[in-house]
Amino acid sequence: MEKLKQKILKDGQVIENRILKVDNFLNHKIDIQLFNDIGKEFKKRFQNKEVTKILTAEVSGIAIAAITAQYFDNVPVVFAKKHDASNLNSNTYESEVYSFTKNKTYKLRVDKNYISCEDKVLIIDDFLASGSAASALIDILYKSKAEIVGMGIVIEKNFQGGRKLVEEKGVKLESLAIIDSFEDGVVKFVK
Amino acid sequence: MEKLKQKILKDGQVIENRILKVDNFLNHKIDIQLFNDIGKEFKKRFQNKEVTKILTAEVSGIAIAAITAQYFDNVPVVFAKKHDASNLNSNTYESEVYSFTKNKTYKLRVDKNYISCEDKVLIIDDFLASGSAASALIDILYKSKAEIVGMGIVIEKNFQGGRKLVEEKGVKLESLAIIDSFEDGVVKFVK
Repeated sequence: MEKLKQKILKDGQVIENRILKVDNFLNHKIDIQLFNDIGKEFKKRFQNKEVTKILTAEVSGIAIAAITAQYFDNVPVVFAKKHDASNLNSNTYESEVYSFTKNKTYKLRVDKNYISCEDKVLIIDDFLASGSAASALIDILYKSKAEIVGMGIVIEKNFQGGRKLVEEKGVKLESLAIIDSFEDGVVKFVK
Repeated sequence: MEKLKQKILKDGQVIENRILKVDNFLNHKIDIQLFNDIGKEFKKRFQNKEVTKILTAEVSGIAIAAITAQYFDNVPVVFAKKHDASNLNSNTYESEVYSFTKNKTYKLRVDKNYISCEDKVLIIDDFLASGSAASALIDILYKSKAEIVGMGIVIEKNFQGGRKLVEEKGVKLESLAIIDSFEDGVVKFVK
């Protein structure tokens, strides 16, 4: 998605040739117009698929999933929760995630009432790197016995192995910008 | 907002005559169509106001703010972060919140680059109860010297004192459903 790549080149910040910071349009300040273009693009990539629900993970996936859902007939969005919430039903599907950025393990949990075996679910998230969060979302859907329509990712870092993990599970993966490497602080996309 | 009140009566769950659980349409599973109606209603309530940015707090405010921004000419949304993030700029406005639900204190932080003194900011959030989170968001805007256009809340629990706190700071408050009490597990709205 050319517009997204241009935005990353213009406003993204590469830190220590390893981390891409996109706080100024994706995960702290949010560019709503760009998010609408992202939603339309996801619809294009999954246009012949029936989708009954969108699943994402808190925090950064939520706004993208909510805007995207509008292009899929306003299907409900379910976001997996990262933390134990005191008023969350204990009746949940859960799966573990290891975060490289924070060097710690946490759980993603979804209330069993909100995904059923009859659902056809599109997973949406902001980043795909090592694939740990992506695997956890897929795992939650396995447990729910819902059909996995596919996974739509805004930014994929292709050198961190996530794609292999997702595709090995038989999930169709569509990433809107795929980063091949960082060279002297500049983002290089896969051609 | 009648449609929202009906939704709360139909799908909200009152726990121990004290907590209103709206996980099934507001803060775990999200009803995108309802969120669009909420966004339109906020626009109506603040229709003569110039808004350059919407501020909310993670997690539950994000989707509401993102959908609402579409009715305010797609202004950017900034969400205050709850946790220290390793790649968040240390150059932040911050303020403390005490959560009664979790009985603990946490910080809300906003990168100084994302709110300027020239901004006219509408605060949007899902709940107003004691007003601790609302006060922190107002405090962050004081520090940024931005103009506060007002505060739009989806569900206000009017018996917990938040409104007084917000109005004492001179902030125009618009809540779409105002709960007066819980009586035998049934939500009673303010007339």
